[in-house]
Amino acid sequence: MRLTPILIADPPLLNTQGVHQPYTPRLIVEVVTSDGTTGVGETYGDSGYLRLAAPLAQALPGHRLDDLNGLFTLAERVCGDPGEVSDSVTSSGLRGVQTADKLRLSVISGFEVACLDALGKVVGLPVHALLGGKVRDAVDYSAYLFYRLAEHPQGAGEADDWGAALDPAGVVAQARRFADAYGFGSFKLKGGVFPPDQEIAAVRALAQAFPGKPLRLDPNGAWSVETSLEVARELGDVLEYLEDPASSTDRMARVAAQTSVPLATNMCVTTFPEIPEAFARGAVQVVLSDHHYWGGLRNTQHLAAICRTFGVGLSMHSNTHLGISLAAMTHVAATVPNLDYACDSHYPWQSEDVITERHVFTGGRLAVSDTPGLGVELDRDALARLHRRWQDDDGTMRDRDDAAAMRKADPEWRMPSVPRW
Amino acid sequence: MRLTPILIADPPLLNTQGVHQPYTPRLIVEVVTSDGTTGVGETYGDSGYLRLAAPLAQALPGHRLDDLNGLFTLAERVCGDPGEVSDSVTSSGLRGVQTADKLRLSVISGFEVACLDALGKVVGLPVHALLGGKVRDAVDYSAYLFYRLAEHPQGAGEADDWGAALDPAGVVAQARRFADAYGFGSFKLKGGVFPPDQEIAAVRALAQAFPGKPLRLDPNGAWSVETSLEVARELGDVLEYLEDPASSTDRMARVAAQTSVPLATNMCVTTFPEIPEAFARGAVQVVLSDHHYWGGLRNTQHLAAICRTFGVGLSMHSNTHLGISLAAMTHVAATVPNLDYACDSHYPWQSEDVITERHVFTGGRLAVSDTPGLGVELDRDALARLHRRWQDDDGTMRDRDDAAAMRKADPEWRMPSVPRW
Repeated sequence: MRLTPILIADPPLLNTQGVHQPYTPRLIVEVVTSDGTTGVGETYGDSGYLRLAAPLAQALPGHRLDDLNGLFTLAERVCGDPGEVSDSVTSSGLRGVQTADKLRLSVISGFEVACLDALGKVVGLPVHALLGGKVRDAVDYSAYLFYRLAEHPQGAGEADDWGAALDPAGVVAQARRFADAYGFGSFKLKGGVFPPDQEIAAVRALAQAFPGKPLRLDPNGAWSVETSLEVARELGDVLEYLEDPASSTDRMARVAAQTSVPLATNMCVTTFPEIPEAFARGAVQVVLSDHHYWGGLRNTQHLAAICRTFGVGLSMHSNTHLGISLAAMTHVAATVPNLDYACDSHYPWQSEDVITERHVFTGGRLAVSDTPGLGVELDRDALARLHRRWQDDDGTMRDRDDAAAMRKADPEWRMPSVPRW
Repeated sequence: MRLTPILIADPPLLNTQGVHQPYTPRLIVEVVTSDGTTGVGETYGDSGYLRLAAPLAQALPGHRLDDLNGLFTLAERVCGDPGEVSDSVTSSGLRGVQTADKLRLSVISGFEVACLDALGKVVGLPVHALLGGKVRDAVDYSAYLFYRLAEHPQGAGEADDWGAALDPAGVVAQARRFADAYGFGSFKLKGGVFPPDQEIAAVRALAQAFPGKPLRLDPNGAWSVETSLEVARELGDVLEYLEDPASSTDRMARVAAQTSVPLATNMCVTTFPEIPEAFARGAVQVVLSDHHYWGGLRNTQHLAAICRTFGVGLSMHSNTHLGISLAAMTHVAATVPNLDYACDSHYPWQSEDVITERHVFTGGRLAVSDTPGLGVELDRDALARLHRRWQDDDGTMRDRDDAAAMRKADPEWRMPSVPRW
């Protein structure tokens, strides 16, 4: 096992907690079999995850590549407690609770993907075939629109030519560029940044610019039940779904009870134990799965089966990630019959990668690879460069903290309390 | 694809609907790959299943062995309607509803197992490894006790030396022989045959003969809510669980609400669509999975994930089956972390098989095979012989009908209406 923490460039994208850091941590997991086959995986790289990954990597040699179910029991035994949950992890509450179990599952998923990649290479099958086979040849993705700054506070990080997007016109221009470059046919705006009326105006502008295209708005739980209902009333005719308008299952259930706009979530249902209450209360109509924190590709398939059984929709969530994870997402998405909506991906925002050949969205879709394993090849020079950046970091970037990043521009900035509006 | 319907010898075991026929139909499914590898599967062989299996077998050549998810969509497209649900299928209501979807899934499972067997042989992995790997090296089974006749009505079928078991002493003697021969450490009695007080006495006799061993009683839904509660009160101290005391989710929920004895089922929850209501109402505490009608080994894993998520226990149901299915059951059981109870199997009652080497229970368990595929080899002579029996049958055995079989002994016998007591 080889674990390589890296820092990757990330643009100054805004959300309700602050702004993306100039660089964000990821962990690259490599498994090397006794006969020299290598498999790669990718997951979150904050220090809490690294603490859990190290003992698992140490315990794995000698185990069988195909012993994927055993990963869970092994990890439970060796990973130990992730330690005090730090502020920085809390600040990633954009993806829901941060229990010890969930952190461990997030680590396991990186290992599971690496094992599946290697296993696929060994037996000559693509990862989707190891998951029961693809039911589609290409996977639909949605354009992930962000309010953003032109550059990071104090000019930090890597520059890009996207410019600022802080109003409806800026959001539409960004969407246009995404549509032109990659053919995306649906659009999600990350909200919770400006007062709701401004975000309503931005979605209205998108609806006018892209008539009939599915639109989504995601304020990361920033709104009250009343505000959520008001936005649902204002935008009900153009929204495919409203994503996490309010935080907590209770608030979501109260919103859902009073609107016909479907509610999606990657915040109130992010672990298996959260499912029964949320489903019983009808709090969510679409679960946005994420193989990283659900515990891997096979657990994602289990989640899909649960959603199918309970008549709840399914799509896919994304945090900042690279091409290894995008390959993994695409393989599992290809195997899920009830993938009801185009998946999210931050990938178009990433200017760096650790694979030799970047994925290219065409017509808003990614073709499913039939190459054995994931179908990606590690770019060891890029990996070494991004790892050096992690090594050279003074510690400020190794744990993602969007609020701290925001304070570089606004020293008074504090993580907003919820509901913000 | 090769489909071979067979008739296998079955002893005169009693249940609430009647008695097992002297011979019961099964379908053996063989898939042969383009490079000559063969995989085998087994499922129900009544004519309704054969009607669905034939078009699927015809449509499969040219498809990939690893395209297991595609089996479902292909079957939906080509299998068509199973036709009028016949009386004989209704009489198998011992395993719950018989919807068109469930019949199709029962056929798919035979094909899925055959594909997994062949795929395992091709890539050099045991079936459990294709399912994510075993979490245990052996699977526990329970002794499956039946009230039974000494021989079939009119001396039909194959004779055996078990003798009749029609009272507590007979049940205990049967249990003793099972325990001595195979080491089973838990016991299930098929009930619903005699008035409840006689079956309570039989379970009490078992508890006395095997103190501390887990016991189960399964009247196949023959009792009213009140009778179920009375039995639960009488046997609560010795029962591991009470299996389908009453029929229908509603009755089960009413029983469950008033007893602390866990209720198990392979009748009111036998398909994914039945899960939400039954779980919401707390109607069942243990689901007895059956890969045949749940749609295969991977669907069984999905069911296990659902049970895990909702805090419902899991074990495994069995109908009359041969060694191919027992191998499949053992592989998938080995991969399920939350297999909370010893599995059921009729296998010890079967004197015939279509594999060259019969499975042997030791200490009540079966070792999990690490041979590529299922780890069984087809005995073509036996298969041909049992197929000839099917061909030679005048039609009376090709659809299992326990009530019709009972009428050979008692011409007045009618399928009892429920609740019977």
